[in-house]
Amino acid sequence: MIDHTHDPALRSWVPSAQQPDTDFPIQNLPFGVFSRAGGSTRIGVAIGAEILDLHAVVDEGLLDSSFRDVTRACTAPALNTLMGLPRARVTALRQRISMLLREGEASAPAEPIRARLLLPQRDASMHLPADVGDYTDFYASVHHATNVGRLFRPDNPLLPNYKWVPIGYHGRASSLVPTGTAVTRPSGQRLPPGASAPVFGPSVSLDYELELGAFIAGGNALGTPVPIDRAEDHLFGLCVVNDWSARDIQAWEYQPLGPFLGKNFGTTVSPWVVTIDALEPFR
Amino acid sequence: MIDHTHDPALRSWVPSAQQPDTDFPIQNLPFGVFSRAGGSTRIGVAIGAEILDLHAVVDEGLLDSSFRDVTRACTAPALNTLMGLPRARVTALRQRISMLLREGEASAPAEPIRARLLLPQRDASMHLPADVGDYTDFYASVHHATNVGRLFRPDNPLLPNYKWVPIGYHGRASSLVPTGTAVTRPSGQRLPPGASAPVFGPSVSLDYELELGAFIAGGNALGTPVPIDRAEDHLFGLCVVNDWSARDIQAWEYQPLGPFLGKNFGTTVSPWVVTIDALEPFR
Repeated sequence: MIDHTHDPALRSWVPSAQQPDTDFPIQNLPFGVFSRAGGSTRIGVAIGAEILDLHAVVDEGLLDSSFRDVTRACTAPALNTLMGLPRARVTALRQRISMLLREGEASAPAEPIRARLLLPQRDASMHLPADVGDYTDFYASVHHATNVGRLFRPDNPLLPNYKWVPIGYHGRASSLVPTGTAVTRPSGQRLPPGASAPVFGPSVSLDYELELGAFIAGGNALGTPVPIDRAEDHLFGLCVVNDWSARDIQAWEYQPLGPFLGKNFGTTVSPWVVTIDALEPFR
Repeated sequence: MIDHTHDPALRSWVPSAQQPDTDFPIQNLPFGVFSRAGGSTRIGVAIGAEILDLHAVVDEGLLDSSFRDVTRACTAPALNTLMGLPRARVTALRQRISMLLREGEASAPAEPIRARLLLPQRDASMHLPADVGDYTDFYASVHHATNVGRLFRPDNPLLPNYKWVPIGYHGRASSLVPTGTAVTRPSGQRLPPGASAPVFGPSVSLDYELELGAFIAGGNALGTPVPIDRAEDHLFGLCVVNDWSARDIQAWEYQPLGPFLGKNFGTTVSPWVVTIDALEPFR
């Protein structure tokens, strides 16, 4: 099946999706988790300045019986169920959503239904896209690894393993928060220059790292590797991450077990997950 | 309210709880998550060679209206809801369970009900006690830190921060499994002695670390510290952990971000959580 969802000529019946400066034209269609005031969380897709409510799409009967597994995922309170499906199912759902939102498409919903499917983004609260059971922070750029290494080891910034094995560590999944959440400056121990004993207090070296986040699709049984040529089957989509870092706390604590309290006070995640399918034309 | 649950004179109407070699006399009462063949997971309490099914305790009306919050936690599929309650509520539940299981106690259930409350441990599968959202592995013993440090840094086993700040890192919560789960020997990179480039293959230095695990009770809002004199209010109970470790993979990868793939292939957790209340007489 040829994927027409990237076609630059596609137009949506959602007027704001046609604005030239929108982040959310019909060619994007990222997934996220939102709530209305006082409501529970639901899965949606960003389109222009609106959110397509996927629970409402199911309620209106706009997914046929071939989407039974996807239907359950679309009515869940977070994206975990959808992310757990084979990636081809998410691709199929995205193609169906593209059809539903397409101008001049015969199978698109009629006018009275459309209003029940959309919510203005300004009226919604955004949440973490998934209940994150674990996350790994990789040292993905040799320039970043060298620059950060120089902060802590001016004479030896890049260690010999870097060019052989992906260097990473587990972040604290329970301190992930959506973008916009206020971050509290942490207190902790730091070793002042030339001192022989640490002092305790608020961090004086707060920093951040702009990172790319990847949400994994499908799973693999513990002890069963994913071959590298199947890696893309296990990628759901990408987001943007701010890895807030207290460099003074990190410098004192990080040997030998790695960063810990210097990275634990909040890690912000963008609420919309751009699928790998949407990024296909930009490879 | 005086806590009589530790009284060595207490006897249970469950015969196996009176065996002198049982791990589960009425003075212990650890919490765990079990399932019957083909059934969903439930919360239970170990007593002798049996499990007291807390969902059945609720179904039989053995918790009065003062336990409304606890009732919801007792019918959940894992211990998270119970662990999220204030610790005093768990203490109250444990006292009620002790009464229910006590020989000669007027409020204990009558004979025909008893059979519906118990399941032999040999007929149950045990699961992780909670859905673990994150866990931290602390370097809690100076002897262990020195011994392990010597494996990697013979000239400098104990680093200067050790005696000032608790050194820890996040383990991979998604590779926690219950005791008894088969652990697969991992493959990875290691640097053979004297070599300048690593080789890939199954670990040749598989090791384990016997550790004490602590389940946290209640929560705290991100950015809000727990004062040290309130720390015990946030301890639910203890278990035993086997931190499987591939020392050759760990030695090559662990600088500068800490242990990662050398510790990710499985961490085994004992299925019964012994409450802090039960340990009170052993301080």
